[in-house]
Amino acid sequence: MSLYVMKFGGSSVGDTERMKRVAGRVVEKADEGHQCVVVVSAMGDTTDDLIDQAKMLNSELPAREMDMLLTTGEQISISLLSMAIQALGRKAISFTGWQAGFRTEPVHGKARINNIHPERVNEALAGGNIVIVAGFQGMTEDGEITTLGRGGSDTTAVALAAAIKADACEIYTDVDGIYSTDPRIVKVARKLKEISYDEMLELANLGAAVLHPRAVEYAKHSGVPLIVRSSFNHNEGTVVKEEAAMEQGVVVSGIAYDKNVARISILGVPDVPGVLAEVFGALASEQIDVDIIVQSGVMDGKADFSFSVALSDRENALRVLEGLHSRLPYREVTSEDNLVKVSIVGAGMVSHPGVAAKMFQVISSQGVSIKMVSTSEIKVSCVIDGDKLHDVIKALHTAYDLDTAEQAVVGGPQVRR
Amino acid sequence: MSLYVMKFGGSSVGDTERMKRVAGRVVEKADEGHQCVVVVSAMGDTTDDLIDQAKMLNSELPAREMDMLLTTGEQISISLLSMAIQALGRKAISFTGWQAGFRTEPVHGKARINNIHPERVNEALAGGNIVIVAGFQGMTEDGEITTLGRGGSDTTAVALAAAIKADACEIYTDVDGIYSTDPRIVKVARKLKEISYDEMLELANLGAAVLHPRAVEYAKHSGVPLIVRSSFNHNEGTVVKEEAAMEQGVVVSGIAYDKNVARISILGVPDVPGVLAEVFGALASEQIDVDIIVQSGVMDGKADFSFSVALSDRENALRVLEGLHSRLPYREVTSEDNLVKVSIVGAGMVSHPGVAAKMFQVISSQGVSIKMVSTSEIKVSCVIDGDKLHDVIKALHTAYDLDTAEQAVVGGPQVRR
Repeated sequence: MSLYVMKFGGSSVGDTERMKRVAGRVVEKADEGHQCVVVVSAMGDTTDDLIDQAKMLNSELPAREMDMLLTTGEQISISLLSMAIQALGRKAISFTGWQAGFRTEPVHGKARINNIHPERVNEALAGGNIVIVAGFQGMTEDGEITTLGRGGSDTTAVALAAAIKADACEIYTDVDGIYSTDPRIVKVARKLKEISYDEMLELANLGAAVLHPRAVEYAKHSGVPLIVRSSFNHNEGTVVKEEAAMEQGVVVSGIAYDKNVARISILGVPDVPGVLAEVFGALASEQIDVDIIVQSGVMDGKADFSFSVALSDRENALRVLEGLHSRLPYREVTSEDNLVKVSIVGAGMVSHPGVAAKMFQVISSQGVSIKMVSTSEIKVSCVIDGDKLHDVIKALHTAYDLDTAEQAVVGGPQVRR
Repeated sequence: MSLYVMKFGGSSVGDTERMKRVAGRVVEKADEGHQCVVVVSAMGDTTDDLIDQAKMLNSELPAREMDMLLTTGEQISISLLSMAIQALGRKAISFTGWQAGFRTEPVHGKARINNIHPERVNEALAGGNIVIVAGFQGMTEDGEITTLGRGGSDTTAVALAAAIKADACEIYTDVDGIYSTDPRIVKVARKLKEISYDEMLELANLGAAVLHPRAVEYAKHSGVPLIVRSSFNHNEGTVVKEEAAMEQGVVVSGIAYDKNVARISILGVPDVPGVLAEVFGALASEQIDVDIIVQSGVMDGKADFSFSVALSDRENALRVLEGLHSRLPYREVTSEDNLVKVSIVGAGMVSHPGVAAKMFQVISSQGVSIKMVSTSEIKVSCVIDGDKLHDVIKALHTAYDLDTAEQAVVGGPQVRR
């Protein structure tokens, strides 16, 4: 007998028919002799409908009351799923975030979990129940209802799995698992049997958003094995764990891309100490995340440097730089979009020199120039022109021996709803 | 500065436009310099919609999960109303039942309030907030979410008013106040300026269901003045309090009726001790409330007796009696519907003999025979044939000097939605 946490997203419980299917899936697992805790999101469009109602009453959407409002979405899901499971003859009980013991920091809309007191979950399991827990929500020490923000239900599932020492946390989604790259671009993408937390983190952060990075970090920290699998079939899925068995000769596990990229360049900046700190401090204080930073050579005491930000942050970043001009007499600021960041990820590349060089060569052979580069021990990222993205990804997939004979079969786009 | 609890039902907050109107009404009160706590029900059809969804998943509607499900209805209302009030420039904060400190017995679907710990409500008021509290719900000592059952939001309002020592509890409804009788039947019904708790209790129990009897009992017990008034206009409403000022010469304050009545007769029962206890014990154990009981004379060691029950309980009651036949050899059981219970209520009748006699006389003068009678210190009830109900009520209204010159103006039927 194993203890599983099973997480189903909003589209998996979009209506009562789908709810019944999820109930059946959970009972199947219980019938195999396992203990099950189910984490579930709000049904389909519930959250959007509630937001629409709120907008009609208060355009500012005050955060504390929005948490009060939106947490009803998961509370509806858990009670209905519990009833659906009971209708199949199994004992089931639902808990809100606060009932399941989720204590968060006192922040609304994007609280972090401080700790979990899962006594009631454990007691209910011991009493033979399937336990249903509302994703995405918690409570402060003062009894205020909070939400965990983006990726919240994944994080709920992983954190709860760690707290109750589950054997695994299964994330049910609309794809079969983690693929070597986007199967919509490369038809012969391979489904990965296993992947390490670090590789998954790189992929998650790079836009292959089947799992939220925060959930992966939590899993890595606590050592809970994650299983990403489809809610529509019984295929095996991908296991995310500490030390993924490395296939013979596989250096690169996956290729990710991110279209949400803009490059900003500051030209002719006085080359004095503290300049970078000033620029990036100002950007950080506006909540703008900077990804890659490149400084070019200094000439006549002036330097040029470039950095990449999310496309959606570009206007905001340019405004911040304009505001700095009085203190920082640069010559010019330019920016560029229609870019894409392509990344190869693989734990194997640590011990294989030349992996990056091969990437640059493959990209060049497609007639594409590389604008920025960043590397980590298990990743190389290149910012390139977006026009030939598909050709570049296909060429890299082939060059790193990732093509399989079979075509990838996926239930939908490999993008998180 | 006074402290008011204001209660709005589901139809008053049926959509976002009505929600805005309620917000405006509350802010008006606050602008007069008062502290306001608002108790609100689920919006319009929300509860019914949730029940429909649940039915599709589990026809048994398990009580614990139904409480989990249905309490989301009020949670949506309170957060939206809080946002609507904030949009008008006032500080507001919403609390669920458990956050407002409602502790109930461990029963689902119809829990009674054990006690209230309103610290958070008091703190929020002290902080200058308008406080919005979810009606109809509470929490057990074990942290289980419960609902208070029928009339729950009225009870929430009154109990909270008592707990925070409010100066009054205003029940906003779709009628102007409490009338001397149903204004749909008697056009010249009079709106009562004041009425005592006891009179209101009799009227509430007798089907003039503007206020739920449980809420009136709570108010009587705690001495909180209730004000029943319209959410659609600023008319004065009716004050329900301990000692209502008695108008000169008014003996009867109101005339109520209840169509939900059936009479059951058991004929030829052996007249031995314990028979009544056996019959009514068996009915009570099936949750059947018996109202009036009449035993006729004994002949040849056999007795006949009749009792009234709610029409909806008739079949169930007959089944119970059938089950008793082996132990209780009665001759025959008969039952009768198309009946109505008409009642006159008035604190003044204690000191005015002949009030009941006058009632019997008025009913007889309409050619209607009286089937059963029951009396209390402030009430006389007669079960009669339903056919001439309107004539009887009009005649009683005139006989007890209740007719006014003006026609009653009401926003809707004097029946609780």
